[in-house]
Amino acid sequence: MPEKTVWGEDGKVYLLDQTLLPGEKHVLEISTPEQMWEAIKTLRVRGAPAIGIAAAYGIYIASRQAADAKDGRSPMEIVNGAADYLATSRPTAVNLFWALERVRNAAGEREAASHEQLAGFLLSLANLMRDEDDQACLAIGKHGASLLQSGDCVLTHCNAGGLATATYGTALAPVYYAVLQEQKQVQVYADETRPLLQGSRLTAWELMQAGIPVTLICDNMAASVMRSGRITSVIVGADRIAANGDFANKIGTYGVAVLAREHKLPLYVAAPLSTFDVSLASGDQIPIEERDPSEVRMLNGQAIAPLDVQVYNPAFDVTPARLVTAFITERGILRPPFEQAISALFSASATL
Amino acid sequence: MPEKTVWGEDGKVYLLDQTLLPGEKHVLEISTPEQMWEAIKTLRVRGAPAIGIAAAYGIYIASRQAADAKDGRSPMEIVNGAADYLATSRPTAVNLFWALERVRNAAGEREAASHEQLAGFLLSLANLMRDEDDQACLAIGKHGASLLQSGDCVLTHCNAGGLATATYGTALAPVYYAVLQEQKQVQVYADETRPLLQGSRLTAWELMQAGIPVTLICDNMAASVMRSGRITSVIVGADRIAANGDFANKIGTYGVAVLAREHKLPLYVAAPLSTFDVSLASGDQIPIEERDPSEVRMLNGQAIAPLDVQVYNPAFDVTPARLVTAFITERGILRPPFEQAISALFSASATL
Repeated sequence: MPEKTVWGEDGKVYLLDQTLLPGEKHVLEISTPEQMWEAIKTLRVRGAPAIGIAAAYGIYIASRQAADAKDGRSPMEIVNGAADYLATSRPTAVNLFWALERVRNAAGEREAASHEQLAGFLLSLANLMRDEDDQACLAIGKHGASLLQSGDCVLTHCNAGGLATATYGTALAPVYYAVLQEQKQVQVYADETRPLLQGSRLTAWELMQAGIPVTLICDNMAASVMRSGRITSVIVGADRIAANGDFANKIGTYGVAVLAREHKLPLYVAAPLSTFDVSLASGDQIPIEERDPSEVRMLNGQAIAPLDVQVYNPAFDVTPARLVTAFITERGILRPPFEQAISALFSASATL
Repeated sequence: MPEKTVWGEDGKVYLLDQTLLPGEKHVLEISTPEQMWEAIKTLRVRGAPAIGIAAAYGIYIASRQAADAKDGRSPMEIVNGAADYLATSRPTAVNLFWALERVRNAAGEREAASHEQLAGFLLSLANLMRDEDDQACLAIGKHGASLLQSGDCVLTHCNAGGLATATYGTALAPVYYAVLQEQKQVQVYADETRPLLQGSRLTAWELMQAGIPVTLICDNMAASVMRSGRITSVIVGADRIAANGDFANKIGTYGVAVLAREHKLPLYVAAPLSTFDVSLASGDQIPIEERDPSEVRMLNGQAIAPLDVQVYNPAFDVTPARLVTAFITERGILRPPFEQAISALFSASATL
């Protein structure tokens, strides 16, 4: 099983610092909301589901601090203050806002009698959300594995594996399930995913740890590999899915989607329900994070371009729904027309 | 004007070590064929036209050595030995083989009376080929500039600028000509071009030196930039063009070509006649160099992926002719149907 990414233990919160992988496996204890904000912002913890869970633990940490400091604010002031603050860490993945909203609502319903009680409740809630994410990923794996046959070769982009979730992954869950639970022979081509190399540092590494055959390529090799006939399907994760099925995911996903269509390969998007944002009619409304130019100009502290060159560094792009073959969710597989399929799913999940 | 890449001066041969750019501008003196082979193999000199010229200087160096050492072999044995050896440095760019063949034929016709005479002749020939490349690139620039208007924004991949030729460039020549000779306002988006980053290290750098606005992006951002409407055309170079118009160029070019078509952008391929290989019916016959996995796993001596991960690292891909809008050559612009256009060009250029 993949590494744990973010978790609570004996009242403390830990996360695996993914910026140091695969060279170093370093676990950080997070004891302030500021540390959690920084960990999300700098991608020590990343992947849409995982940052949602990290944010829930972040609010717990704020309540823990408040209890210890005998903070004069009310429980809801503490929760809202921490949630507003953590919401500013990254703009695109909707799971972050979904998680913060869920914690806010739950805390509001609960009406904690003391700061200590609030902290206890928020820790339980964050642990529950972590466990639910495990279950959702496992279900995504099971549904998605039905789309894979022995001999298949999946191309993926970025990391939507175990390291992007609590443990099991979204885009890689069908591969893990097919190989580990169903004994199918499936291999993976992993795009390295510039500028932060989540494909080479994280996807390649976690698949190797699990003994699943993986071949690393540069992003610009995907077209050639598809044309050679080696790939049978493309599976990616998502950071936000609009009501019409347009979705945001790591920069480069849109290009991979165009190439998949050109080569008549199915494009599957694996994501839990918490990644859908049905308040947005289309992908045009999804905010796209632009990150620091130094991510493109420098690598591991060394210049790899002129240091004064102008850079455009969007962290995500939007892929139109017309390029998606199916969404793989924990509730099953959604086929076009997506607007209706998504609407039906959320009508049925009104209690979510 | 861009930097000189490879040149003869006072009987000595020099090249700019492009592996150290943009951090360091280091000129190497090349005094043995082995040094020239290594410089081509390791991309100290690169770009299809430039490695052809480098190879011509490499044969001159072999003849210079032979003259100094009073080598017992005949002039043609020296030329053929050096040409056979240098031909093993890189397989894809046909300009290399074209240049070696041209030197062989010229030496055969000339029948040098002494090693000293041979060396003098080969140096003149290499210098001539360098000057001809300058002229060809200038003509490519002039023809190509007719395709550009003020306000245009060109996306390019890899480096087919001044650093890929003797001085002026192929893919960038139309931009240089339009901006520097015709005072048009043209800007460039440069793909960084993993794994060896010719786009960030070389294209961005040489355009900045020339004062031409350039924005650097990772390869996987090209699709998103095209979709945003910022790009008006794509211009790339080529390493080998088959008789039907299929062409090999730096890995990633094929993906860019598919994306250009998807976004209804013209794709122009700028190359001198020495890049055409009319002996090949289609691109399927072009040999594609695969390079060392360490180019993908490591950068500047640091690991950026698991060091034991399996890697696929083709240096080139083949783009089918159907995705090309036009070829820009020193003899003018070729439009579809390319098979006829190329055939007509080479019938008219039988003396080449």
